[in-house]
Amino acid sequence: MSNIEERLLPVGIIQHTFSDDVETNRTRNEQSIVTLAEEGARLIVLSELHDSLYFCQTENVDNFDLAYPIPGDFTAFYSRVARENEVVIVASTFEKRACGLYHNTAVVFETDGSICGIYRKMHIPDDPGFYEKFYFTPGDLGFEPIETSVGTLGVLVCWDQWYPEAARLMCLKGAEMLIYPTAIGWNPDDSDDEKRRQRDAWITIQRSHAVANGVPVVSVNRVGYEEDPSGQTSGIDFWGSSFVAGPQGEIITECSESEVEERICVLNLSRSENVRRWWPFFRDRRIDAYGDITLRYR
Amino acid sequence: MSNIEERLLPVGIIQHTFSDDVETNRTRNEQSIVTLAEEGARLIVLSELHDSLYFCQTENVDNFDLAYPIPGDFTAFYSRVARENEVVIVASTFEKRACGLYHNTAVVFETDGSICGIYRKMHIPDDPGFYEKFYFTPGDLGFEPIETSVGTLGVLVCWDQWYPEAARLMCLKGAEMLIYPTAIGWNPDDSDDEKRRQRDAWITIQRSHAVANGVPVVSVNRVGYEEDPSGQTSGIDFWGSSFVAGPQGEIITECSESEVEERICVLNLSRSENVRRWWPFFRDRRIDAYGDITLRYR
Repeated sequence: MSNIEERLLPVGIIQHTFSDDVETNRTRNEQSIVTLAEEGARLIVLSELHDSLYFCQTENVDNFDLAYPIPGDFTAFYSRVARENEVVIVASTFEKRACGLYHNTAVVFETDGSICGIYRKMHIPDDPGFYEKFYFTPGDLGFEPIETSVGTLGVLVCWDQWYPEAARLMCLKGAEMLIYPTAIGWNPDDSDDEKRRQRDAWITIQRSHAVANGVPVVSVNRVGYEEDPSGQTSGIDFWGSSFVAGPQGEIITECSESEVEERICVLNLSRSENVRRWWPFFRDRRIDAYGDITLRYR
Repeated sequence: MSNIEERLLPVGIIQHTFSDDVETNRTRNEQSIVTLAEEGARLIVLSELHDSLYFCQTENVDNFDLAYPIPGDFTAFYSRVARENEVVIVASTFEKRACGLYHNTAVVFETDGSICGIYRKMHIPDDPGFYEKFYFTPGDLGFEPIETSVGTLGVLVCWDQWYPEAARLMCLKGAEMLIYPTAIGWNPDDSDDEKRRQRDAWITIQRSHAVANGVPVVSVNRVGYEEDPSGQTSGIDFWGSSFVAGPQGEIITECSESEVEERICVLNLSRSENVRRWWPFFRDRRIDAYGDITLRYR
């Protein structure tokens, strides 16, 4: 390990099912946070939109009732929980920025309950069952890491995970780990082979961001079946499989596909120093030849 | 499959050991090409620098004798082999561009023996046992796909495989598959755990390029032990594991870690059309926010 100071960070991850009752979801989230904090977690990551069902299965204007301003009820609740448990929390919310203007936003709380920073989901999906372009305006804050007492966090959200550009930009600005709150699952009508390919691809590409950038990746998904209120599709089987990978992309812990779980995993942040010495990918980037990355198509 | 025409392409991959005798290496390569062509391969991919040992284990000026101009002896040999077997060949060479100016270059031959295009390795590694910066000037042709009768090839070389930018730029310009001739292996002194992490990372990041871009990936490595002529290190155990992945990153075929192998694998190029309809990552790229990719560090 040469002369590198060891930095250990116990990270708690919460893989839950959710109901249509916000108060119930919040209460269960708080119980898990209390448990993980008691067990020593200093950073706790929840999944995407963890105060509600995944409401994007249909386009319904009534669902805008689920949005909260920042600051507001949402931040008041998780601010208190962070302060009382003295943990850093990465939470996720449906942000009402103004009348008719909404985002899918991650909020990071400091151990004293203050807000360290927010990240507005930059890449917004839209496919059958995931009608996010109806609800969320694409983020306008760019790819900016958030400084906290436990490290510099590269917080991204779900669909962002398919974009190596997002991970790279976070790490080029000093993110020490990548964090992905997520809500992804299977169409129950798909074949088992197709389901395997989808889940494997989802794990593979997030591990690859660890490899390309020499940082750990924390990905937290919801779990369980949620029906499509419109009845048009067979609903979504959220595939869980929340995981943490180290800076060589190695899996450190991986949750099940179907169970509610909360886990602690200890990250050794000093390994990035070692890995980047041996795999100095940042040294050899051909920045003179990357300009066309900003084109839609060449 | 909707109304999408099926395009099947039998690809032959050659995972060899090599000796210090160029003629012997070429003869064995030709024998494998003949065999694969007879079995129906229409595109054949060799590993990196397949006419010699991996000479970059030491910095030795005499090794510049191994370089060839383009056109020259190297292209004459593989041009004839491509023409006689009516196959497209992705070959790899130590290019002498001028006195004192050398590249690590992939050359693609058409079925009539003509040269379709060349790619000069853009990212050049340099670490103990892999002293490539001594031998190879970084490529100056950029990331340009090569048109052939079997499709548009995104040919990259070895160290390039760690850079999502390279894969993206190839695919943004129409590459229908990514091809990586490679020479990568273990330091025999590393622990088994470290060896596993390295090989897994190498497979993971290349599969991720398939996922991010919805194209197949063909990666061909050398195999076997080569000693370090300087005696400074324990040499390199080239880990083989050549593989082909489909456009969801799914492994289609994978060679062993230690055996000489030649294989045919049938790519279904029409699957990219399907995969990109369902996973429309190109649609949602935030090209307005990617500008800093061209910075060394933000």
